[in-house]
Amino acid sequence: MSEPVLDFETRVTMDDHQALRLWLRWLSCTTRIENQIRARLRQHFETTLPRFDLMAQLERDPDGLRMSELSKRLMVTGGSITGITDQLEQEGLAVRMPVQSDRRAVIVKLTPKGLERFRKMAADHEQWIIELLSALSDDEQHTMLAQFRRLKMHLGNVAAASVDGTGPQQ
Amino acid sequence: MSEPVLDFETRVTMDDHQALRLWLRWLSCTTRIENQIRARLRQHFETTLPRFDLMAQLERDPDGLRMSELSKRLMVTGGSITGITDQLEQEGLAVRMPVQSDRRAVIVKLTPKGLERFRKMAADHEQWIIELLSALSDDEQHTMLAQFRRLKMHLGNVAAASVDGTGPQQ
Repeated sequence: MSEPVLDFETRVTMDDHQALRLWLRWLSCTTRIENQIRARLRQHFETTLPRFDLMAQLERDPDGLRMSELSKRLMVTGGSITGITDQLEQEGLAVRMPVQSDRRAVIVKLTPKGLERFRKMAADHEQWIIELLSALSDDEQHTMLAQFRRLKMHLGNVAAASVDGTGPQQ
Repeated sequence: MSEPVLDFETRVTMDDHQALRLWLRWLSCTTRIENQIRARLRQHFETTLPRFDLMAQLERDPDGLRMSELSKRLMVTGGSITGITDQLEQEGLAVRMPVQSDRRAVIVKLTPKGLERFRKMAADHEQWIIELLSALSDDEQHTMLAQFRRLKMHLGNVAAASVDGTGPQQ
């Protein structure tokens, strides 16, 4: 069954394995969705995706998070976290607090104003995702959720089998 | 039907719309796959994902690509492209060439050595992707390819409907 050629990544990978074609198309969709989210966050809230992602992590932990934990979860450098936190603090959306048990550590948490701001953005963000993924039916999304869950477990096992937890098994 | 709680993104989004849960799990899988690819490229070829992606673009166009086109395709700044191209040129893997019709433009292309190096990496990369996606059956991958094709078209339409081609429709 031949498929119509719709974009460059389909065209150039006709000889490639199905898994590789899937991965390239998957990445292409990911980038397009992220670009939409980025543009809408800028347009509607004058904010960036890294800021939104950081506030989302803070919202999930009302007691606050250590900078090191934020860096790990968002998989970005400590420097980026510090820069974004500085901005949020200047705008009164987040505060840094000392950790009682560890004098070298600092916890960041959202202020009530920051929480309110985030919840407004998160509500719109959820609607955008619903709209952007609407080409997939509810049933398809349900099936895909289960498939991605299985895939995620597999990927966790692959990572755990690596020597350092991220590298491949020899 | 209740699902077992397997990871933080499932736990925290039980009240969220299915589309949002799907998107968060999708992103989580994407990051895990990219981390594996990054670690393996470093370990097996002492190279980085941006370098691999840039070489992949050049391999697809044997006549070479303009720096501006590379920047657009890879969605990174011209500065990053210049930096990677400098490295590749120093290692004899790519060359810069002037464009006859446009004295300000420069084309980058792989050298035969660069092409050989890339093909070796690409063959391994394809095997890694097959392994990493192996939690999905051939049939599931086939179905997902079609679903992502449909989704990608939808996302293209959404972007085209925006004023500047990237922003949301008002």
